[in-house]
Amino acid sequence: MDINKAIKQLNDIDYKLHAINHAGALIHWDASTGAPKNSVEGRAKTLSILAGEAYKTIVNDEFNELLTYLENHKSELDYVTMRKAEEFRDEYDRTAKLPQQLVIDYTEVQAKASAAWEDAKLNNDFSTFAPHLEKVIEFNKKFIEYRGYKKHPYNTLLDDYEKGLTTDILDEFFSQLKNSIVPLVSKIKESKVEIDDSFIKKNYPIGKQKELNKSILEQLGFNMDSGIMAESEHPFTTNFDRNDVRITTHYFENNLLPALFSTIHEGGHAIYEQNIGEELNFSTLGTGTSMGIHESQSRFFENVIGRSKPFIEFLYPIVKETFPDNLKDVSCEDMYLAANKTEESLIRTDSDELTYSLHIMIRYEIEKLLFENKVLVKDLPELWNKKYEEYMGIVPPNDAEGILQDVHWSEGLFGYFPSYALGNAYASQLTHTMKKSIDFDDDLKNGNLANIRNWLRDNVHKYGRLLTPSQIIEKATGESLNAKYYTDYLEEKYSKIYEL
Amino acid sequence: MDINKAIKQLNDIDYKLHAINHAGALIHWDASTGAPKNSVEGRAKTLSILAGEAYKTIVNDEFNELLTYLENHKSELDYVTMRKAEEFRDEYDRTAKLPQQLVIDYTEVQAKASAAWEDAKLNNDFSTFAPHLEKVIEFNKKFIEYRGYKKHPYNTLLDDYEKGLTTDILDEFFSQLKNSIVPLVSKIKESKVEIDDSFIKKNYPIGKQKELNKSILEQLGFNMDSGIMAESEHPFTTNFDRNDVRITTHYFENNLLPALFSTIHEGGHAIYEQNIGEELNFSTLGTGTSMGIHESQSRFFENVIGRSKPFIEFLYPIVKETFPDNLKDVSCEDMYLAANKTEESLIRTDSDELTYSLHIMIRYEIEKLLFENKVLVKDLPELWNKKYEEYMGIVPPNDAEGILQDVHWSEGLFGYFPSYALGNAYASQLTHTMKKSIDFDDDLKNGNLANIRNWLRDNVHKYGRLLTPSQIIEKATGESLNAKYYTDYLEEKYSKIYEL
Repeated sequence: MDINKAIKQLNDIDYKLHAINHAGALIHWDASTGAPKNSVEGRAKTLSILAGEAYKTIVNDEFNELLTYLENHKSELDYVTMRKAEEFRDEYDRTAKLPQQLVIDYTEVQAKASAAWEDAKLNNDFSTFAPHLEKVIEFNKKFIEYRGYKKHPYNTLLDDYEKGLTTDILDEFFSQLKNSIVPLVSKIKESKVEIDDSFIKKNYPIGKQKELNKSILEQLGFNMDSGIMAESEHPFTTNFDRNDVRITTHYFENNLLPALFSTIHEGGHAIYEQNIGEELNFSTLGTGTSMGIHESQSRFFENVIGRSKPFIEFLYPIVKETFPDNLKDVSCEDMYLAANKTEESLIRTDSDELTYSLHIMIRYEIEKLLFENKVLVKDLPELWNKKYEEYMGIVPPNDAEGILQDVHWSEGLFGYFPSYALGNAYASQLTHTMKKSIDFDDDLKNGNLANIRNWLRDNVHKYGRLLTPSQIIEKATGESLNAKYYTDYLEEKYSKIYEL
Repeated sequence: MDINKAIKQLNDIDYKLHAINHAGALIHWDASTGAPKNSVEGRAKTLSILAGEAYKTIVNDEFNELLTYLENHKSELDYVTMRKAEEFRDEYDRTAKLPQQLVIDYTEVQAKASAAWEDAKLNNDFSTFAPHLEKVIEFNKKFIEYRGYKKHPYNTLLDDYEKGLTTDILDEFFSQLKNSIVPLVSKIKESKVEIDDSFIKKNYPIGKQKELNKSILEQLGFNMDSGIMAESEHPFTTNFDRNDVRITTHYFENNLLPALFSTIHEGGHAIYEQNIGEELNFSTLGTGTSMGIHESQSRFFENVIGRSKPFIEFLYPIVKETFPDNLKDVSCEDMYLAANKTEESLIRTDSDELTYSLHIMIRYEIEKLLFENKVLVKDLPELWNKKYEEYMGIVPPNDAEGILQDVHWSEGLFGYFPSYALGNAYASQLTHTMKKSIDFDDDLKNGNLANIRNWLRDNVHKYGRLLTPSQIIEKATGESLNAKYYTDYLEEKYSKIYEL
């Protein structure tokens, strides 16, 4: 083998995997945005064959040898190729270290657990889900055994979603959050400020909402030639390559805000993907580097920009022009307050900017205990409720609104939740640095996001997966993850709103 | 190898190819119905990788040996497996007999020819397209050399789109058509009957047209749980499997009929696919058997049903209710006549039921001469114009409206056109038999298509590719292709309308 041949082989495999992923992502997109009811079986069949092809492309001796060869010739590789080889080595190890039969059995366990979760939630009966959840956890523990771990078994799972993330980092991170947000939430409970947001629940015809959301998405900088907007039950973003990035929105006729902020949120994900370096396109490196950095972009757009006073000053006349009757007695300040009203909440997906991270913290603490073998599955509901009482001051009236609310665990997604909270913190940390060189509030007031977008492109977006999450944060802000920017931001913002 | 293992291997390859085709078809569907402008490059890349995978799956020694093994054990195979093996042998031979470099070079020749055709049509300049067309034809001649042929070189190409079709069959077929349709068209020119169809060109809001078309599609028997309707520039049908069949329509605000009849036409294609035998699903046999039989279904629905007097009696009140102002002075007879107005026409895609086959006949005669080396590319425009004058009584004023009108030749689609005309004839032949057991007109008057659909399902649809086109026609009607039913149908219908 010579080095050029090896690089070509790697690139061919890279493009092939991209094609398989493109096809799979389009099938998923189609399933959520248009496919007919009876298409389920055909879709499942095709997806499973595509997944098998991707597996075979990665897990084989020839590919292992190719990666080893490239590792032994690192000095001869350009940076992009080296990073590709690293990412594929990770993927190879993640997959090849597991006995194939275990993976096949796990698929069945997951499918049964998801079905059991659905029933359990519907019937509000955790006990029927518990044995399935136990199995899913057992499999994940076995995976960790095969794959190995550093310091804490849960680290292996965390690393899957956020490279380099550990319980040490998260323990420190969440303790900072806890010390700031928990007291802030209780102080707000005592505040005399009452925000009247009844105007958001008038009738807002969906056709008009769509026009409004489209124009705002364009204002944010979403390139309509390299992406589309559609509708689905749950909003999401998908990307085939930087020139084909798609978002969905779910509209509610009787509520103005959910669609608006979810469009801005997905817009943040999409603008990230549309601005990844062109030289990385169609490659495994040509997408966002991690869940956490992705979430930092969506939450930056949704909260730091979208729910900020200056941007709402910009939005206010546009929204008012679209719905003049509904908003005739609503001031700009009213709209700002309605967009930032906070309440203790039981359901993560309905929660606001302030309490969101508490939901994640609870899940993190429980997941960690599970992988330390310090809690039994049967005791989870009690533990869950205790933590909600402690951090949020409310107790779920039942498990459906408590421990059964999220689908993730039934699918085996452990280690996934923390990245949601990291995203918020990254967003504040990036904003802090960005503000040193950009007239932030002034730009937002004018709806001029070009400077902000350029900054993000040059410091975050363009790198794709060339850099790891921590490399991106350190390079952009000069320090590693620091929750202080986030807690400062929350304290300042909510102290003003609730006159604390 | 044992027989069960061999069958399993064949089925695995069959399902894999189905998955690849599913992904490719969805990418094409998406390209026409929603994909953003800049998605072209990513789509091309993925499609080419999928095509490469499909090629590798078929063209390899192991697959060749598998097919040979199955051929040697035919007596141990069930009918479905035997037919699969036959179809794959055809596909293997069609592909593997060609040198790979020739196929790669041809892709480039096609791409350049398509671009040149576009320019030539735009600039109305055949001379710039001629050298490209020559090359495309040259390649096809080489393909025929490698693949071999029986009796006439063109037969090899005809067989690709309609298994078993030959120039002998088509010469006889088109001569019957010519003897009937050409005089019929001239007689109609002399007829004093003038059909006033000005009402179809009023303003028909697209939203209302969509509702109407959807309800008619359901009335025809399209299963909305196993398919969807969308919009695209050019209407088409695509099918991933029998439970996911999709059609598109193109609406014109100022013309009621094009969308209506194109929906019925695509509905015919779609109902065929939705009714293929369940046991053939996800397999190479689980789709329509040929272009010709497919076209027979679409044209049966569009013309034999859709443009018939009894079905228009059923449609008339529904359409009138949707557009009461536009149609207040229009009678059911007016609508029937407007739907069946015929005129000599230069453009195939705009032509009516009567003259359509003449357009096809001209292309057939020219294609045949080309593959007999009896005409030079440079002389084609003159030949084209002469034939239009002879059969249709009109001469194209320029090549853009003449020989340059269709994209097909630039893409190398020779042998493809005749199946369009076969479809019309098959449709009439099937109708003739069907009428013996079904109260045809009465069912149409009531919009009750259940008996007709069941008949088609049992005699055509359910077989998928289990039977060849000629087997289906013979089994269903008791005789081989016979153009007389079609010419009788046209003569009877148009003699009445134009009072000949």
